[in-house]
Amino acid sequence: MAQDIYDKIMMLAKRRGFIYPSFEIYGGSAGFYDYGPLGSRIKENIENLWRKFYLLKDICVEINTPTITLFEVLEASGHVEEFTDLTIDCKKCKMSYKLESIISDNTKIEQAIKEDKIKCPTCGDHLKNPYPVNLMFSTKIGIGNSRDAFLRPETAQGIFTDFHLLYRYAREKLPFGVIQLGKGYRNEVSPRQGIIRLREFSMAEAEVFFDPKDKTHPNFEYVKDKEILLFDNEKEIKISLERAIKNKVVNNQALAYYMYLTQDFLLTAGVDPKKFRFRKHASDELAHYATECWDAELFSKRFGWIECVGIADRSAYDIQSHIDSSGVDMYAVRKYDKPKIVEVKKIIPKMKALGPLFKDKAGKIKILLETYKIKDDKEINLNIDGVTIKIPEKCYEIVQIKEKISGDKYVPHVIEPSYGIDRILYCILEHSYSEKKKKDEEYRILKLNQIIAPIKTGVFPLLNDERLNKISKEIDRNLRNNGISTYYDESGTIGRRYARMDEIGTPYCITIDHDSINDNSVTIRDRDTTKQIRIKIDKIVEHIKDQILNYS
Amino acid sequence: MAQDIYDKIMMLAKRRGFIYPSFEIYGGSAGFYDYGPLGSRIKENIENLWRKFYLLKDICVEINTPTITLFEVLEASGHVEEFTDLTIDCKKCKMSYKLESIISDNTKIEQAIKEDKIKCPTCGDHLKNPYPVNLMFSTKIGIGNSRDAFLRPETAQGIFTDFHLLYRYAREKLPFGVIQLGKGYRNEVSPRQGIIRLREFSMAEAEVFFDPKDKTHPNFEYVKDKEILLFDNEKEIKISLERAIKNKVVNNQALAYYMYLTQDFLLTAGVDPKKFRFRKHASDELAHYATECWDAELFSKRFGWIECVGIADRSAYDIQSHIDSSGVDMYAVRKYDKPKIVEVKKIIPKMKALGPLFKDKAGKIKILLETYKIKDDKEINLNIDGVTIKIPEKCYEIVQIKEKISGDKYVPHVIEPSYGIDRILYCILEHSYSEKKKKDEEYRILKLNQIIAPIKTGVFPLLNDERLNKISKEIDRNLRNNGISTYYDESGTIGRRYARMDEIGTPYCITIDHDSINDNSVTIRDRDTTKQIRIKIDKIVEHIKDQILNYS
Repeated sequence: MAQDIYDKIMMLAKRRGFIYPSFEIYGGSAGFYDYGPLGSRIKENIENLWRKFYLLKDICVEINTPTITLFEVLEASGHVEEFTDLTIDCKKCKMSYKLESIISDNTKIEQAIKEDKIKCPTCGDHLKNPYPVNLMFSTKIGIGNSRDAFLRPETAQGIFTDFHLLYRYAREKLPFGVIQLGKGYRNEVSPRQGIIRLREFSMAEAEVFFDPKDKTHPNFEYVKDKEILLFDNEKEIKISLERAIKNKVVNNQALAYYMYLTQDFLLTAGVDPKKFRFRKHASDELAHYATECWDAELFSKRFGWIECVGIADRSAYDIQSHIDSSGVDMYAVRKYDKPKIVEVKKIIPKMKALGPLFKDKAGKIKILLETYKIKDDKEINLNIDGVTIKIPEKCYEIVQIKEKISGDKYVPHVIEPSYGIDRILYCILEHSYSEKKKKDEEYRILKLNQIIAPIKTGVFPLLNDERLNKISKEIDRNLRNNGISTYYDESGTIGRRYARMDEIGTPYCITIDHDSINDNSVTIRDRDTTKQIRIKIDKIVEHIKDQILNYS
Repeated sequence: MAQDIYDKIMMLAKRRGFIYPSFEIYGGSAGFYDYGPLGSRIKENIENLWRKFYLLKDICVEINTPTITLFEVLEASGHVEEFTDLTIDCKKCKMSYKLESIISDNTKIEQAIKEDKIKCPTCGDHLKNPYPVNLMFSTKIGIGNSRDAFLRPETAQGIFTDFHLLYRYAREKLPFGVIQLGKGYRNEVSPRQGIIRLREFSMAEAEVFFDPKDKTHPNFEYVKDKEILLFDNEKEIKISLERAIKNKVVNNQALAYYMYLTQDFLLTAGVDPKKFRFRKHASDELAHYATECWDAELFSKRFGWIECVGIADRSAYDIQSHIDSSGVDMYAVRKYDKPKIVEVKKIIPKMKALGPLFKDKAGKIKILLETYKIKDDKEINLNIDGVTIKIPEKCYEIVQIKEKISGDKYVPHVIEPSYGIDRILYCILEHSYSEKKKKDEEYRILKLNQIIAPIKTGVFPLLNDERLNKISKEIDRNLRNNGISTYYDESGTIGRRYARMDEIGTPYCITIDHDSINDNSVTIRDRDTTKQIRIKIDKIVEHIKDQILNYS
């Protein structure tokens, strides 16, 4: 069977230590992959570059929240209800299928169900009665009185449930953004696309909070003339950000700004600009929380256009849901020029009553009461450690007080760029892969750029000579002490050693030869031009650092 | 109630954005914490420093494997059987307790059970019948024909199950090490020690593979005279590495080397040397896989000595278990000077028979057959996708062939330094915390060092003046473009702004005043000495970089 590019890359990836199928010694499990020594470097390089764009260049801070997420959080966010795939079972061959994977054209699923014409792709049997399956991995926290939980389907909810704390961190000024990198989980019914459809994947998400009345971005001015390539499901257009907003192709500045930031990031990371575009979600494609969404798609020869980043306007959906479900005040405030004095109802918790009644839970209850949004109904029910507790009236007082109000409360809107790191990593490998024949042998070069390359320099003593080895090891040590990853190699012909480095994308190779002993110089070879320059040993670190920096 | 240092730190941590209790708006859940904007920076700084020690200074590479782990892996590793806590339930108040948390002295548990004298710490009722509870979070992969899985209790197993691939990456030379950073999970029965005992935690582990006949480390020579502080459960001794081995206080060079690396890392990260020691595990304390283990313990005023790193000799336990359970050849080879020719039995898979019989599983079976270790019994059973499949004899041939053997096979031994990042982070906060009275107000300084500090520089225009703000923003932007985290602040008195930065551990504050307009200079204040120096604007980046580098 002829190998296509995916097969070639995955074989190279396994042989050289980029990507391994997980649990292979126990027969493996679809939807799980390991990053080997080189893959994990690329992944970290991509993530660190991403952080540079969002933490240092943009207006974001970073947080880390657990992957295990309480049922309550994901019920409020709509995932318990909506995060499902329509699934169908074959009674004959006992396989289960995601309906979308049998009927490739999304728009024809409804029709196929109605016409009752679905066939098992394995045994050809007639399939009936599709049903929704929730795609979250579930687990339980604690034993006995345990609580239901899921592995998070997105990192975003950890950010939303901390909004009131993060708003305080941002000193109550919008817009500001919060990023999170980490694992996301999706218990796919039957994943069949290798590393493109994982059950456990690496995400990088930004949730940027805006006043719904003002979706402008403070850095927009710097980028408004930049062009992006859009595909509206019919044709491609190249358009400047400013024009895209003026023509209402993109709804607001914030969306347009993050589309450009995404494009800039992906191209800097090494995506082929000719294999990159934005595509707008049709209304029936939108996730349950989104009002508008643009995907950054990357082209793969095996898979076609792949959704690698989604940039969605989640509007007020999530924060509003958590306010409604938790009762906690998570509003932002549009400040008046001068504060107003108004009469408000406020809850004053009485610790003397709460303490004896609720013991170690009293402190939690006090915090929840103080931020509780008073409704018309008189009863106050709080959710403590998974149990709904009615708070007796003697435990608090509702007082009418005069309060200085500094502004109007509102629910912020969220613009969310959400990145699938594994897909981006695979596409960068595919876009960087090249092969040619050299002396009748397949010669492979991964043209990874200086930032993404897992190893920055090979270090080779030309001959196996103690003096050369000693100098080489010192150079290697010095590079590493300066934070530059190296691969020290003294075996095989120099051509063979270059070939090994070309195949894993190492941009520079340093060779130490007999002249090095006398002139304190070495040869540095460039992977892409194969040109060699001679350079003083004490200038190596500076030279390599400059090369990497110049690129970024 | 008087606050102790833990309360003070956790309040500061919440107020300023280091650490938040998770899911607080839904009443929270014990054993889960979020890292806020500042906490996540500290965590990343600690992890990156750790990588420097293990990836660049030592002989390790890094991998990333899934947190969801197949049942088979954790059954083989002994975790299904052994990763348990003895638990006891109270029938009256419906609480469950880890026995160790009721009876603080480990050695008295057996006796207490025998004497039947255990009382409920909540209601005082008599407790009976303790039983072991497995501490892994369990879940299922897929629907219908689903497979049992757990959230990993340690990152190590992902490394062990890839050993044969990693050994190839290391070009079949020992010693070499493999690190992994990421989440670990432990479904504690009733965690009560805040951030010290988490159900989901951040780990950094290294598994370093040695020939059991040669547990020397190539870098030992550089550090043999360094001293470590040991506590043998009776007294503390300060001893050089070389002497510790000579006197058989520590069993081998590899263990001693990683103890020193651990000490060096922790002190560089900002642990107080007076609150640091190594303690040896008593034999009844050892995990099921360990033959010797030293804990690096850090002292906390609230918790006493806390185990933050375990440095264990796991011997051949794990690799041997996976060889036995999977049948895959995961041996290392001690090479002969010259290869020998020997007669061996080998399995030749017959794809013509495997293909029609096993369809899409045939490829996996072929790979497993080729590495299958032939036993005396004739039947070959393979575990494919969770199902044990008997392979009919017609599908393979066992041939007696002459093979060139390059050396003796052996199961490598593993030395494992395993770090609990959250505990280390908390201890660094506690060791860095200081407070004093200033004008009758509590004044707090976090003396975090330059590497660990979440924000490296505050940037302050002295007065709210458009020209000063403009220069300040340019300085801020320039620092960020050079990878230096900043906090831009134009509000409040300069004293108030210094105080905000002191409280979160920012080592430098840059103030831009009216003189800056004319002399292109700014003032840089040092947090610890409060001394100020005047420096040219175009020298700021270099100066700050030097300060951070000099420290590391």
